[in-house]
Amino acid sequence: AEQFDPATHPHRRFNPLTGEYVLVSPQRSNRPWQGQIEPPQLTVLPQYDPKCYLCPGNERAGGQINETYEHTMVFVNDYAAILPPPSPIAPAAPHPLLATQPVDGQCDVLAFHPRHDLTLARLAVDDITRIVDEWIAVYKRRGTQEGIKYVQIFENKGTMMGCSNTHPHGQVWSLGEVPSIPYMELASLARYAMNPNVAPSHAPRGPFGRPCLLCEYIHFEVSVSESQSRVVVKNEHFVALVPWWATWPFEILLLPRLRHVPSILHLTKEEKLSFANILSLVTKRYDNLFSCSFAYSMGIHQRPTPPKDECTDSDNEANIAHLHVHFFPPLLRSASVRKFLVGFELMAEAQRDITPEEAASRLRACSEVHYLDS
Amino acid sequence: AEQFDPATHPHRRFNPLTGEYVLVSPQRSNRPWQGQIEPPQLTVLPQYDPKCYLCPGNERAGGQINETYEHTMVFVNDYAAILPPPSPIAPAAPHPLLATQPVDGQCDVLAFHPRHDLTLARLAVDDITRIVDEWIAVYKRRGTQEGIKYVQIFENKGTMMGCSNTHPHGQVWSLGEVPSIPYMELASLARYAMNPNVAPSHAPRGPFGRPCLLCEYIHFEVSVSESQSRVVVKNEHFVALVPWWATWPFEILLLPRLRHVPSILHLTKEEKLSFANILSLVTKRYDNLFSCSFAYSMGIHQRPTPPKDECTDSDNEANIAHLHVHFFPPLLRSASVRKFLVGFELMAEAQRDITPEEAASRLRACSEVHYLDS
Ligand SMILES: O=P(O)(O)O[C@H]1O[C@H](CO)[C@@H](O)[C@H](O)[C@H]1O
Ligand SMILES: O=P(O)(O)O[C@H]1O[C@H](CO)[C@@H](O)[C@H](O)[C@H]1O
Repeated sequence: AEQFDPATHPHRRFNPLTGEYVLVSPQRSNRPWQGQIEPPQLTVLPQYDPKCYLCPGNERAGGQINETYEHTMVFVNDYAAILPPPSPIAPAAPHPLLATQPVDGQCDVLAFHPRHDLTLARLAVDDITRIVDEWIAVYKRRGTQEGIKYVQIFENKGTMMGCSNTHPHGQVWSLGEVPSIPYMELASLARYAMNPNVAPSHAPRGPFGRPCLLCEYIHFEVSVSESQSRVVVKNEHFVALVPWWATWPFEILLLPRLRHVPSILHLTKEEKLSFANILSLVTKRYDNLFSCSFAYSMGIHQRPTPPKDECTDSDNEANIAHLHVHFFPPLLRSASVRKFLVGFELMAEAQRDITPEEAASRLRACSEVHYLDS
Repeated sequence: AEQFDPATHPHRRFNPLTGEYVLVSPQRSNRPWQGQIEPPQLTVLPQYDPKCYLCPGNERAGGQINETYEHTMVFVNDYAAILPPPSPIAPAAPHPLLATQPVDGQCDVLAFHPRHDLTLARLAVDDITRIVDEWIAVYKRRGTQEGIKYVQIFENKGTMMGCSNTHPHGQVWSLGEVPSIPYMELASLARYAMNPNVAPSHAPRGPFGRPCLLCEYIHFEVSVSESQSRVVVKNEHFVALVPWWATWPFEILLLPRLRHVPSILHLTKEEKLSFANILSLVTKRYDNLFSCSFAYSMGIHQRPTPPKDECTDSDNEANIAHLHVHFFPPLLRSASVRKFLVGFELMAEAQRDITPEEAASRLRACSEVHYLDS
């Protein structure tokens, strides 16, 4: 009988964070593409754009004038999706299936740098460290506000991913409820930690005296697997890899690899530098893959709030979170041909065309010097 | 204190099919849009395109010549994501978190009509009835093949939704496993049916002698709710509405409203005509909303296979499925401005900017005569 070859034969892989499968169809990558061609992602931009609402000194949509900031700038979103408390009490549901849950919180915008033309991929590691510091500050500030249960930090990069301003920036939405996806991930982590059938390996231990799902997974990828075929890059404290269960073509999961770290607030000074360093290495490789400003959605998953910087047993449940960053980039074949997660993917199951191992190998082969700087 | 107004105040709604929430932020629809503008969706196309691989008599990618078909045409996808059995046995997992599940099945393509320029919205109801017949035939044919557990029928319409050929067509992927999303929906339906705390209403009864989740929901929307504010259109046997928990701006859920129908194979002759009729009414309204060929992903959820056309108690578990069609269209403000489900939505939770009630009201206001034909 024929040997199973994951690089040729369709198969499914399980995502233990979401509990869903992904259908891997490597043979599909030969199919000709006659569909939508993405417009070129602008790479040469002015350092200052008088019409940009994020450039220093300019006027924003709400009429405020931006500081002439030198590093980062944080402000409340002028078109926030969630508003500060109190929200009025919702009426009784007319039927149990039609319940309304009021939700409040705050939406912040974080400009990464005064220069209009620089992205994470082109910023110095020092500048990225300042962004990490700002993330920690906003996580702490919003997370200690009464009623806030989760602080979601994310970045939409590129018009293809719904970004409406090329000025380098991210967002922070803080909510009075743990949103569906982190909620599900936290439940998966807790279930794994409490499953008596899981034999603990030599991976670092977290809450409940056992390795968490992600400590266990990363330990396998970095210290047990001989091929290390999904690892893209690692540094002193972090690793970036294309996870076994990746959905997006060049999806990356980036996380601390040596110990269980529940949130960005738990990072030591050295780890913080490592974090900034690997964010730079990953985004440079992304841009170099197709010599373009690589589009993606990026998000940080971590401990629900209130933030704590210690790990005590009474707080095991919340600290089961293992800080990680997801990068979901849509490009598949070139700077202009993306993967569409549509029909089958929306109705039935995630589906990918190249294997995670092939994606990791191509990202590994990319230079760490940005193509515009070399 | 202020009164809660769902058309003004951010809130969350629960999707009982997926178990996830959607964040509704109606106040966001005022925000200016400076992001990506979609290219015009072509509406005037030739009736026959010599380069189209779906037009009658033309050559396909694999070299086969299409029949000179008069109604519909079905063939195996030349670039199938799943291949027929047997698939080779997968090697043992190097770690329990890295298991490989081989999967086989079949991918079919279904050309809706010989005319290159007609979509569901512009086909006669007679022609749509033939498509429904073809769906029933393929559901039956693939569903009785050994090892097949689910037949996923879907359509990607418009380049915006990853469609690479404007010739009207859909796809059918049949798999040896129930894919993640229908699996989850079926589990939700079963959980609801077996929940002793749910008091049955006057809704039609299904398996286990009780109304299923969808029978119950539809009964409320169509027969109890006074405002009927989410109903877009109904006919003798079907209803199309913007569900309470809709994620996509003009999302529609279309389903039989008078009795529990597990699959398209269970449809009576009259119901089949009603089905074709309402598919026509919905797609016409969609095109008329922004006077364009409205993009969407559409998919049919129904009973896992093998197909059965009777409802016996021993088969309650599979027949808990209630046939329904999801339409997920991305356009939000106009023919050229879409909603991006990115950053926060991919990392945290679905989010929408106009209420389902507002979306339904705008779709209700659309004409049932296609704008190109009036
Ligand atoms: O098979 P098609 O139409 O070429 O491809 C389209 O539909 C598939 C199934 O939803 C997706 O996986 C592809 O990304 C999309 O471009
Ligand atoms: O807030 P922005 O950047 O204007 O908007 C972007 O990000 C939001 C959060 O992911 C999305 O809801 C929007 O669809 C997207 O265009």
